Amino acid sequence: MRAVDIIAKKRDGRELTRDEIGFIIRGYTEGNVANYQMAALLMAIYLRGMTDDETLALTEAMLHSGEVLDFSDLGRPRVDKHSTGGVGDKTSLVIAPVVAAGGVLVPMISGHALAHSGGTLDKLESIRGFRTDLSLAEFQPTLKRVGAALIGQTAEIAPADKKLYALRDVTATVACRPLMAASIMSKKMAEGASGLVLDVKVGSGAFLKTEEEARELAKVMISIAQGMNKDCVVFITDMNQPLGRAVGNSLELIEAFETLKGRGADDFNTLCRELSARMFVLGNAASDADRGRRFYDELIESGAALAKMSDIIRAQQGDANVVDNYDLLPGTSHQQQLLSPATGYVQAIDTEAIGHASMLLGAGRVWLDSAIDRGVGLTVHAKIGDRVALDSLLVTIHFNDAARAEEAVGEIRAAYKIGDEPVEPPRLIKAVLPS
Amino acid sequence: MRAVDIIAKKRDGRELTRDEIGFIIRGYTEGNVANYQMAALLMAIYLRGMTDDETLALTEAMLHSGEVLDFSDLGRPRVDKHSTGGVGDKTSLVIAPVVAAGGVLVPMISGHALAHSGGTLDKLESIRGFRTDLSLAEFQPTLKRVGAALIGQTAEIAPADKKLYALRDVTATVACRPLMAASIMSKKMAEGASGLVLDVKVGSGAFLKTEEEARELAKVMISIAQGMNKDCVVFITDMNQPLGRAVGNSLELIEAFETLKGRGADDFNTLCRELSARMFVLGNAASDADRGRRFYDELIESGAALAKMSDIIRAQQGDANVVDNYDLLPGTSHQQQLLSPATGYVQAIDTEAIGHASMLLGAGRVWLDSAIDRGVGLTVHAKIGDRVALDSLLVTIHFNDAARAEEAVGEIRAAYKIGDEPVEPPRLIKAVLPS
Repeated sequence: MRAVDIIAKKRDGRELTRDEIGFIIRGYTEGNVANYQMAALLMAIYLRGMTDDETLALTEAMLHSGEVLDFSDLGRPRVDKHSTGGVGDKTSLVIAPVVAAGGVLVPMISGHALAHSGGTLDKLESIRGFRTDLSLAEFQPTLKRVGAALIGQTAEIAPADKKLYALRDVTATVACRPLMAASIMSKKMAEGASGLVLDVKVGSGAFLKTEEEARELAKVMISIAQGMNKDCVVFITDMNQPLGRAVGNSLELIEAFETLKGRGADDFNTLCRELSARMFVLGNAASDADRGRRFYDELIESGAALAKMSDIIRAQQGDANVVDNYDLLPGTSHQQQLLSPATGYVQAIDTEAIGHASMLLGAGRVWLDSAIDRGVGLTVHAKIGDRVALDSLLVTIHFNDAARAEEAVGEIRAAYKIGDEPVEPPRLIKAVLPS
Repeated sequence: MRAVDIIAKKRDGRELTRDEIGFIIRGYTEGNVANYQMAALLMAIYLRGMTDDETLALTEAMLHSGEVLDFSDLGRPRVDKHSTGGVGDKTSLVIAPVVAAGGVLVPMISGHALAHSGGTLDKLESIRGFRTDLSLAEFQPTLKRVGAALIGQTAEIAPADKKLYALRDVTATVACRPLMAASIMSKKMAEGASGLVLDVKVGSGAFLKTEEEARELAKVMISIAQGMNKDCVVFITDMNQPLGRAVGNSLELIEAFETLKGRGADDFNTLCRELSARMFVLGNAASDADRGRRFYDELIESGAALAKMSDIIRAQQGDANVVDNYDLLPGTSHQQQLLSPATGYVQAIDTEAIGHASMLLGAGRVWLDSAIDRGVGLTVHAKIGDRVALDSLLVTIHFNDAARAEEAVGEIRAAYKIGDEPVEPPRLIKAVLPS
């Protein structure tokens, strides 16, 4: 078997066999298939697509390129959630403690910030001492003892995905459904989860811009989960505006703490509640979604979810006092208020531009090795459909570097579209599949 | 400008600007655009195509990645011929001396064997002492003094093409019309030719398998030549069977010498005559193709063409005695005769398989650094349409290594299709464009 023949076959739109996909992924992981050959194949896959069978084979090959955790001896269901990424999406920081407090294990392997979207790991790393780099040997006992553990992708987990992800980023092959699905599912299957809730974001702040693309990706991921005998529920949710109010690492962490205390923004709390409810069902902690929703409310009201958050922080060697004292988090020396240039209704928000502005302030990485400023970010006061008056507050900008702030302000100003017509806010949850 | 954005633009089927193409080719030549990014772009070009404007811009960017020779001070037309490659195609070895003997300069930059097709340089290197690696400083005075010079692509000539060619070979992006056209035309334009005759091969032994593909490539190359104000005639010729009778390096050289002596096989001599006739017209040595054909016949009959071949060999430091003494060429210790398994007519010959068999014997390179055995090869006795009897001679196999010969015999046997129905031989010259 030769890599060039496999590339030619996909180039001509033919279906690759399981053996051919295994050969390529094994070869690539081991360094026998060159980056340039994989790049040509990725572009051929981008333009020619993959069948469900090919995507399943690709996922399995990537999964088995590294270690696959097996927690079945724990004798309890393990359910994880994954989001395709957006702006202000800090759901993991609420869901992990809530669901763990409800008795379901949550083994969560998360990512750092990517392009304009935030990363769970960067947010957690705002907490002094918090270790996201637990080894696999530390991960398992932590999960068992605390009920949840949140770490980054280690070198042992799906190394083919790690290598492919970096290559896709520089070869314009990121937004490709079979590649996205295989990347997400191979990592998630390696965690040893028995069930999975996926949140596919769609809209101006998401990688997928149309609901049709999101439904296609959902379909592929459900097919992969079925092929691997895993329970899987996929949400398609709105990302035409930031989720909740906070964008930026310690700002989002504070919003998550507030939500765990029952004081979350409506849209953000609703999404956390819906996702958690389905995780309770997959984890046999609730018999249906409605009971799952009530369980979520109870765990928030009783303080059990917040207490679990403290447990998680302590278990991963962070300073748990942060939950009650936000001054322990990185902050900023300056704030600036961006005011509405007109009276009217917020018609639309270019959410990718909002995420990009936050990245410019220092919340994300412009280069792979950029240092992150965990204090900076935005507080979003006006969302789509809101009525605003001239000079009323749109966004508070938290910054440390005035030059960067100026550039960010320009981007945010351009991102807001204000007009005379009243507008319905976008529907937060567009679909839950399989329905 | 970023490479990844240019890749994304072509991926989405949009037309690249001249600046974008220049940026990518310059970056790639200088090493700032990585092989994996170029590989992704090549696959996007393969699947999305290029407009004539893009292909012209690509050709010019590749041309200007290196030195461009200028022989306009010689005050005489300079005409070259290029073939897209086939099996048994040794036309350059006849055309260069004939056309130079007719007073037209022939600056010829040729290639080594590629895949199943032979290479002019490998054939010439069968002659003891013959140097195909003249520097550009040696090339010009040789051309001026002798009238023809045949060398390989130096590091100074279109280095972008050299790098791209190697990459295309391992990323399944060879048979792509705009990339083929830009590769051929950038090299040829760098030679300083004022006119060009192109021979696009089509059929089972060519890189292009259908006449439609060949016509498309011809159209693109004519458009590039027009964009650069160069005269250009394109032949579309048959490659459904080996050209002439010899396949292999010294065997093909001998067939070229025989043709220069007026004893060539009909099909091969006809093609050399037609191509030369058009070169005479482009080089102002004949007023029309018919006078060009008669000029070709005269130069063969008078011995002038053969004498010019001796001049060329001497000028490039080869042993010119070889023209009269074929024992000075590498030979083989063994021959084997492949006989017809049936009585009937030759219906078809898988000519790629014939070329591959010759490569297996050692005439071509299985790996980039394989050594070539210049003595080995095939003599083809039966061609399409020929009537053959049971046990009549199909092919003589000249070999040095018995194990290799066995494998080659199997391939050749499978390549011949013999049946009861009489068959018309394929038409050698399918079109001459612009007509």
